Amino acid sequence: MEFSFEEHPHKRLNILTGDWILVSPHRTKRPWQGKVEAHAITTRPSYDPNCYLCPGNKRSDGSINPDYKAPFAFTNDFSSLLKDTPDGIVNVKGLLQAKSEKGICRVICFSPRHDLTLPQMDVTDIVDVINLWKTEFQELAKNDWMRYIQIFENKGDIMGCSNPHPHGQIWAQSSVPVEPEKEQIQFQKYFKENNRSILSDYLAEEEKSKERLVCENAHFVALVPFWAVWPYECILISKRQVQYTHQFNEEETLALAEILKKLTIKYDNLFETSFPYSSGIHQAPVNNGENPGWHWHMHFYPPLLRSATVKKFMVGYEMMANPQRDITAEQAAKKLRELSDVHYLSK
Amino acid sequence: MEFSFEEHPHKRLNILTGDWILVSPHRTKRPWQGKVEAHAITTRPSYDPNCYLCPGNKRSDGSINPDYKAPFAFTNDFSSLLKDTPDGIVNVKGLLQAKSEKGICRVICFSPRHDLTLPQMDVTDIVDVINLWKTEFQELAKNDWMRYIQIFENKGDIMGCSNPHPHGQIWAQSSVPVEPEKEQIQFQKYFKENNRSILSDYLAEEEKSKERLVCENAHFVALVPFWAVWPYECILISKRQVQYTHQFNEEETLALAEILKKLTIKYDNLFETSFPYSSGIHQAPVNNGENPGWHWHMHFYPPLLRSATVKKFMVGYEMMANPQRDITAEQAAKKLRELSDVHYLSK
Ligand SMILES: O=P(O)(O)O[C@H]1O[C@H](CO)[C@@H](O)[C@H](O)[C@H]1O
Ligand SMILES: O=P(O)(O)O[C@H]1O[C@H](CO)[C@@H](O)[C@H](O)[C@H]1O
Repeated sequence: MEFSFEEHPHKRLNILTGDWILVSPHRTKRPWQGKVEAHAITTRPSYDPNCYLCPGNKRSDGSINPDYKAPFAFTNDFSSLLKDTPDGIVNVKGLLQAKSEKGICRVICFSPRHDLTLPQMDVTDIVDVINLWKTEFQELAKNDWMRYIQIFENKGDIMGCSNPHPHGQIWAQSSVPVEPEKEQIQFQKYFKENNRSILSDYLAEEEKSKERLVCENAHFVALVPFWAVWPYECILISKRQVQYTHQFNEEETLALAEILKKLTIKYDNLFETSFPYSSGIHQAPVNNGENPGWHWHMHFYPPLLRSATVKKFMVGYEMMANPQRDITAEQAAKKLRELSDVHYLSK
Repeated sequence: MEFSFEEHPHKRLNILTGDWILVSPHRTKRPWQGKVEAHAITTRPSYDPNCYLCPGNKRSDGSINPDYKAPFAFTNDFSSLLKDTPDGIVNVKGLLQAKSEKGICRVICFSPRHDLTLPQMDVTDIVDVINLWKTEFQELAKNDWMRYIQIFENKGDIMGCSNPHPHGQIWAQSSVPVEPEKEQIQFQKYFKENNRSILSDYLAEEEKSKERLVCENAHFVALVPFWAVWPYECILISKRQVQYTHQFNEEETLALAEILKKLTIKYDNLFETSFPYSSGIHQAPVNNGENPGWHWHMHFYPPLLRSATVKKFMVGYEMMANPQRDITAEQAAKKLRELSDVHYLSK
């Protein structure tokens, strides 16, 4: 018997974190008798008087949203990080260690329309979202104590999103968190040894084999990474190596909006549902010198496995030992690649 | 303003993994408008003719369960790891790396009774479960290629458990997975520097302050670790440093059964529900020489945050950047500590 990663259990290396993940390709036949999620409701009004994100409505802190027409950002009323946190350190014999953390949390409404999601928005309106991501990031980075800025979206109540109004968040803080720190180490190491971006070299390999590609345009590639953990996980990589979203020119920004729409349409079409996920942009840390190895990318971690109602659980073994997946990255990419670029609701 | 970790956002160090976690103590007042889980059904028949784990019933591979009276183990019909995996390595320029992985997956039925869970079982019956954990572990470790054996339980459908019959699993494999590997590094480092177990020294500090203790007996302590991520996360630590469950003598085994019952009763009492969690025992790797720094412990990761129906989501920020929690470890420990030791259903 010869080893084949389409058939046999194996581990794969995540080159961005240095961690391994476990793949069990033979296990897709497992019957599912467990938890089934409620099917998400797909019709919402374009304005909801009870939504604290709709234009003109009252928020929990009492303030009133402006009658915004374009993407709109404000400071989170329940920020998990605060600007005026006093400095402090606890250290009991190295065994109990704590450090204060300063930060700012922002909410970004993608659209005044309560009933839309990214795949249903016009490309030009997505361009506006990207431009707001750029200016918010640049504003936050002006604080000299700022070190890292995480832009992300939780989509769907299965992903802990407490309001279906299309929106994302920014958590910006005074130190570099665990995941980008791991990436920082991997990016720097490869750059030192090769004087090139690890993601540029990785992309070249993926363009050769093509088996994990989902879609691409002149400036971006969406693919299921070789080391994907979530069943339909994707990574969006810019063809030109930049550290920050605001380094993209107008043409690249348009291309980013286009591929964001294309990828999220494919996601919605996969199980004919408003496809839940957490997405996040990994940009280089700020105010900490040069980051020549860092390469802009965006992760999509969707929880669904088999249908709109059956998800993959990252539990017991995954929490105690190691992330694990059943279908291979290649199978997932093929499925996504072959899906239509036209949203199932607009047919 | 002086920094206080009961009030201000901060990071804490997990001494077992070397990772930091983010704590936002001020954020518990956040209203919840998001997903609400279905309340778990608490009454089940003691025998279910459709359950593939009940005694005498047919499993998915066609075999018939014996009419077992004590805890019963068998090889998982849908094992994610297989014994007869051929050896193999893929390495494309260091960018695409995969390695075959050999292993054995076992299922352990805790009781023939379909309607029980650990907190509802007699202590002597829990002793039988622990003894089966010991013999299964020792049998699996006899394979010379075996390196790591993960014993765990997913409890509740919210934790991806596909069958409510009380059971746990064992995934045993030919390499050491990510989480125990991190612990191995931390255990060894501390032992080299101090010639003592880091968990023994940590336990001494916790016994002094007492604010994170949940319950204890002569041989074990259950506490909310300083670096807990999940709202009511607990760690169970043996007072005597051993590497493996089978090193516990009879008296210690009984004490382990007792504290397992006590802790899981408190959990059920917290929200008066069959409390979901993933638990797992971290024992030293096998067939790889001495592990003098390793200290036996067991993790409990429960997802619930505010009630039987509102959970903590580890999503967007947590996936992209850093684990985050709202209530502090101290608040959670106090709540658990003050709960009754008598199960709410038996009152
Ligand atoms: O083996 P089970 O109980 O069917 O499956 C459950 O536990 C496994 C190990 O933690 C996970 O990989 C699965 O996602 C989960 O649904
Ligand atoms: O801020 P929200 O949308 O209320 O909350 C959601 O996203 C946060 C950031 O990923 C998480 O910490 C919360 O658990 C989740 O429910």
